[in-house]
Amino acid sequence: MRKVFQAELHQIGEGLIEISSLVNDAISKSTQAFATANLQAAQEVIAADARIDFLQNDLDERAIDVLALQGPVASDLRMIVGSLRMSASLERMGDLARHISQLTRLRFPQQVIPASLTATFAELAQLDILISEKVTELLDSRDLELVSDIMAAKAQISKLHRTVFQAMAAPEWQETAATTVDVTLASRYFERFGDHGVSVARKVSYLVTGEWQPEDFLTA
Amino acid sequence: MRKVFQAELHQIGEGLIEISSLVNDAISKSTQAFATANLQAAQEVIAADARIDFLQNDLDERAIDVLALQGPVASDLRMIVGSLRMSASLERMGDLARHISQLTRLRFPQQVIPASLTATFAELAQLDILISEKVTELLDSRDLELVSDIMAAKAQISKLHRTVFQAMAAPEWQETAATTVDVTLASRYFERFGDHGVSVARKVSYLVTGEWQPEDFLTA
Repeated sequence: MRKVFQAELHQIGEGLIEISSLVNDAISKSTQAFATANLQAAQEVIAADARIDFLQNDLDERAIDVLALQGPVASDLRMIVGSLRMSASLERMGDLARHISQLTRLRFPQQVIPASLTATFAELAQLDILISEKVTELLDSRDLELVSDIMAAKAQISKLHRTVFQAMAAPEWQETAATTVDVTLASRYFERFGDHGVSVARKVSYLVTGEWQPEDFLTA
Repeated sequence: MRKVFQAELHQIGEGLIEISSLVNDAISKSTQAFATANLQAAQEVIAADARIDFLQNDLDERAIDVLALQGPVASDLRMIVGSLRMSASLERMGDLARHISQLTRLRFPQQVIPASLTATFAELAQLDILISEKVTELLDSRDLELVSDIMAAKAQISKLHRTVFQAMAAPEWQETAATTVDVTLASRYFERFGDHGVSVARKVSYLVTGEWQPEDFLTA
């Protein structure tokens, strides 16, 4: 019984890593498509999101089965409940990668963002990709050094997100309202993706240490 | 034992109703403050959100204790896991009410949105308030008629959300970029609030009927 249980816990952990790795594929391809106005790649990201949703559902069902059949307690219980939360965050990251591709599709063959913000969005993209890579690695290794990397990347995203809003508020900003709308949404999607990555990282950190990080650590 | 367990389940249900009712207060006051540029009311919404976060945490901890101590199975287990998900959606609705008040605070003493969109946002506000009222009622009564009301309200929100975006894309739109940014964010917050309300409604419906609503029901 104990052995089966450990195998099931292990499988749930593997499931999270698989979803996280698909999210990493999604954000990598989606931001690449966004930067190059690549309709084909954007469509692929949009289509691939159903797989992430399916895997999340599947993982959640397995987690509930383990709860029902094994009645875990203490840290095992927290790990399973934590998995339900982490799978929800990962699924949402997949949605956000899809939303970015939907913007790419909507504006094709034009670029979504104006040339003046290309460099800023390239940096945001790199940071989101880095976060999803580190999250995948963290779920696998539970090496908490990665948590600070993720937090640092998120702090940098917040800074860039503010830069984007400042650019739009400046008198030099002469873009159409449609572009302003797109930039606002895109910046928010890139930012929210990072937020959810941080949520997953905090959850892993809590499961490993038993200590909840204070909220202000988030905004450090 | 069984009696204690039923009392604990009941308490979790009551906890959800309490949070949902605070969310309803938050969105009512927040949209009122938004419509009238009332800084004082906006500040109160922002300050009150911590209470929702606290209650969510508290409810989640109690749900985990019940899982650990009672090892529930079948529908009781699903109810508790569902509560964890619903509390997360409700907490997020509280965040969105807070975000709307943060926009109000940011632009005070100006209005966040231009006069041309006042009526549309008033309607969005009414629909969000209606959704949170019906969600609170649904959590209490489990009357599934309310689910269709919530879905219908959400469909109407999506329509209005598109109207707002069309207004910003029209040649008549002469607002500043800062206003365009604010309107984009506000419309998104109002829309996401409704989405989370629908999530809660679908979860209740699933717990009552055991049948998962297909995704396309959402976008009907």
